[in-house]
Amino acid sequence: MRKVAIIGTGHTDFGFNSPKTGLELFCDAATEAMAEANVQSKDIQALYCGNGLSDFSEGQIMIQSYIADSLGCRNIPATRFEAACSSATVAIRDAYMWVASGFYDIVLVGGTEKATAMGTALATRTFAMGTDARYEFPAGLTFPGFFGLLANLYASKYNVPFERLRRQMSLVSVQSHSYGVNNPHAQFKKEITVDKVEKAFMVASPLTLLDCCPFSDGAAALVIASEEKAKELCDTPIYIAGVGQASSGMLSSQYKDIPRLKARDISVKQAYDMAGVGPQDIDVCELHDCFSIASIIAAESLGFAEFGKGGQLWENEETRIGGKIPINISGGLKSKGHPIGATGASQTVEIVKQLRGELTSQKRQVEGAKVGLVDTLGGDGIICNLILKKEEK
Amino acid sequence: MRKVAIIGTGHTDFGFNSPKTGLELFCDAATEAMAEANVQSKDIQALYCGNGLSDFSEGQIMIQSYIADSLGCRNIPATRFEAACSSATVAIRDAYMWVASGFYDIVLVGGTEKATAMGTALATRTFAMGTDARYEFPAGLTFPGFFGLLANLYASKYNVPFERLRRQMSLVSVQSHSYGVNNPHAQFKKEITVDKVEKAFMVASPLTLLDCCPFSDGAAALVIASEEKAKELCDTPIYIAGVGQASSGMLSSQYKDIPRLKARDISVKQAYDMAGVGPQDIDVCELHDCFSIASIIAAESLGFAEFGKGGQLWENEETRIGGKIPINISGGLKSKGHPIGATGASQTVEIVKQLRGELTSQKRQVEGAKVGLVDTLGGDGIICNLILKKEEK
Repeated sequence: MRKVAIIGTGHTDFGFNSPKTGLELFCDAATEAMAEANVQSKDIQALYCGNGLSDFSEGQIMIQSYIADSLGCRNIPATRFEAACSSATVAIRDAYMWVASGFYDIVLVGGTEKATAMGTALATRTFAMGTDARYEFPAGLTFPGFFGLLANLYASKYNVPFERLRRQMSLVSVQSHSYGVNNPHAQFKKEITVDKVEKAFMVASPLTLLDCCPFSDGAAALVIASEEKAKELCDTPIYIAGVGQASSGMLSSQYKDIPRLKARDISVKQAYDMAGVGPQDIDVCELHDCFSIASIIAAESLGFAEFGKGGQLWENEETRIGGKIPINISGGLKSKGHPIGATGASQTVEIVKQLRGELTSQKRQVEGAKVGLVDTLGGDGIICNLILKKEEK
Repeated sequence: MRKVAIIGTGHTDFGFNSPKTGLELFCDAATEAMAEANVQSKDIQALYCGNGLSDFSEGQIMIQSYIADSLGCRNIPATRFEAACSSATVAIRDAYMWVASGFYDIVLVGGTEKATAMGTALATRTFAMGTDARYEFPAGLTFPGFFGLLANLYASKYNVPFERLRRQMSLVSVQSHSYGVNNPHAQFKKEITVDKVEKAFMVASPLTLLDCCPFSDGAAALVIASEEKAKELCDTPIYIAGVGQASSGMLSSQYKDIPRLKARDISVKQAYDMAGVGPQDIDVCELHDCFSIASIIAAESLGFAEFGKGGQLWENEETRIGGKIPINISGGLKSKGHPIGATGASQTVEIVKQLRGELTSQKRQVEGAKVGLVDTLGGDGIICNLILKKEEK
C-alpha cells in the first residue's frame, strides 16, 4: 500500500454552547485545513466525518452529506462514523485506507460536535448511550461513574494508596491546564492547583469536577493525501505510519481486565507494529484523558509505564515538555475541551503541529519531535490509535 | 487491488415491533451468514455495521462494539456507518475496500434497525432527521412529503399525465407485493391491487399509504472475503465487481436536477465503470423503492429507461421475472420491509441469492442471472451502488 500523509489541518475554538451548528463548525475547520493544504473543493475526492450526537443534539442525521455540499465538494462520497468519543479517529483510520489503497489521492477527514446546548445533566445521560443500554446504563452507569469505578479498582488492584492516587490524578489535571493556558483553541485557559482539584465538588467518587473533562462544541479537520500528492502540495508532510483499532463488550464483560482496557493493548500494538516503532520511540502523545484516572490507565497500556505506575510519570514530571514522554501538551480533553465527535481529529491536528515544529510561539513545542501517537477511547470502549511520523530528511 | 467476494448471507424476518433488540437482530443475521460461509467468530477480522437510529430508538450508540463482543468476535475493530437508509450499503462498500486493499481477508458486514417501537407518527418525525434540519425539516418536510413533491414535479417535468403516473406508481406497489408473497422474510405477504393502492388513505398527495414502504425492524449480514479465501471456503463466491457512492445537499439545493437525483447518476456510473458493465448487462436489480415514485425515478438514473419513461417498465411488465430488467424481486422495501440501517445489506443478500440461483423454491428466481445491481438511497440523499457478479466458469 502507498504511503499516506497529512497535508493540512484546521481546528475551531472549543467551548460550551457554540453559536454555530455542527455543520458550520466542521466547515470552519475544513476550510482552514484546505487552505493550509493548498487544495480547493474540487480537489477533495471524498469526505470522512466523525460525529457522535448530531441526531440527539440538532435533529440531524446524514450531516456528512450536507457538510460536503456546504463546502462546495458537490456529490463526493461522504461517510459518517459514529464511535462515540473515538468517532473522528476511526474516520481518520478509514480515510487512511482509501488513500493507502490507491483509490483516492486527496480526501478530507475530521469530526464535529455541537451537543452542549442540551445542558450538563441531559448531556451526561445522553453521552451514557455509549455504555451498554440493556444492562449497565439502566443500572445507573454514566461515564463519571464508570471512571470513578475504575479509579477505585485501580487503587485496589495495584496497591496504590488512595492518597497517592488522589494526588497523581490531581497532577494530571493540573498539568493539562498548565498547557491549555497556551493553546488558543482551548476551552479553559486558566491554571488550577492540586488543592483546587481536590476541593472541587464530588462528581463520582473519587472524581471531583476537576478530574472530569468538560462538555464542548467544536470541530477539527485534516486533508490527507497520497505521498505523491503530498510532496507536490506540501513541504512538511506528516505521514500516517501506523493505525490500530479494537473494540470491547460492556464493562462487566471486561471484568478480568479492568481497570486495564484490553482493546487498548491490542489497538496500540497494531499501530506500533505497522509503524515499526515502540513506546520508546514516541516523542509526543495525545491520549484520551476524559477523566484524570483515564490518563494514568492509558499511559500504562500505551507502554509508557508499568501497570500500577502510570501516575508516577506525572509525579516525576515525565509527561511535561522535556520529560520522558510529553503527554497532552495541547491541554488534553481536560483543558482544551472534548467535543466528542471531533476529539480524535483535534488530537491528530495537535500531533501534526508538534511534528512540524509549529508550536514554539505557543510555548508548547516538544523540540525535535519526529514520532507522535494519538490515542482515543470511544465509550467503554472502542480504542483507535494512530502513529504519525515526520519524514526523515 | 484484490478481488473481493461475498461468501455468506444472513437475513432475519422483517416486521413491525420486533421483540428483539437491534443487537440481537444483527447477531441472528450474522450467525446465519457465518454458518453459511463456514467461518467462526475467530475468523472474523473486522465488523462493519450499518445502523441509523439505535440512539433514538434504543438509547444505544456504539452498538457495533457490543455486537462484535456478543458474536464472540472479541476485540476486533468494529465500525458503525450512519447514512440514513443507505447505512448498510455504505458499510459494505467500506468493508470491500479493507479486503480489496489486502488489509483483511475475512470480515463481517451488515446492518440492523430496531426503531418501530416508537410508533408511526414519531418514526416519521425521527426519520425526517435525514433531511436538512436547519431549513427543510422545520418547514415541514418529512419523507412522504419529499417524495410527494417529487411525484408532482415528475409528472409536470416529463409531461406524464397524472392519471397515467398514478397507475404506474400503483403498478410498482402491486408488483412488489406480488413477489413479497413468496419471500419468507417479507413483512407483508399479501397481494394488493391497483384499486386498493388508489383508494388507500392519502399520506402526502399523490402518495397513498400503499405507495409508501412500511416502518420495519430487522437485520441482514454478509461475510466478505478475499478471492483466495473465498475459493477455499465457498463453491459459489459472488464478487463485488463495482462500487459507487455520492452525496447531495438539501433538496432545495438540488432544484436544477430534481426529480432526478444527480448523486445517483454519479454513483452508478462509478460502479458501472469499475465493473466494466452498463445497464444492459444487469440481469437483476434491487433498487430503493421507499415510495412507489422512487422506483420509477431510480430505474431511469440507473439507465433502464429514458427520463420520463421509467413507469412504462412497470406498465409493460419489463420489471418482472422474464422482463427486460427484473427489479425488486425480493418484494422491495414496499413489501419486504425497510429497517433503515439494514436495507442495503438486505438488498445485497437478495442479489447474492439471485446470482447463486437459490430462489427457485421461492418462485422468485431470475434464471441465469450473472450480474446484479444494488441501489440504495439515504436521506435526500446519499446514493450507494454495488455491482455483484457471479464467477464465469
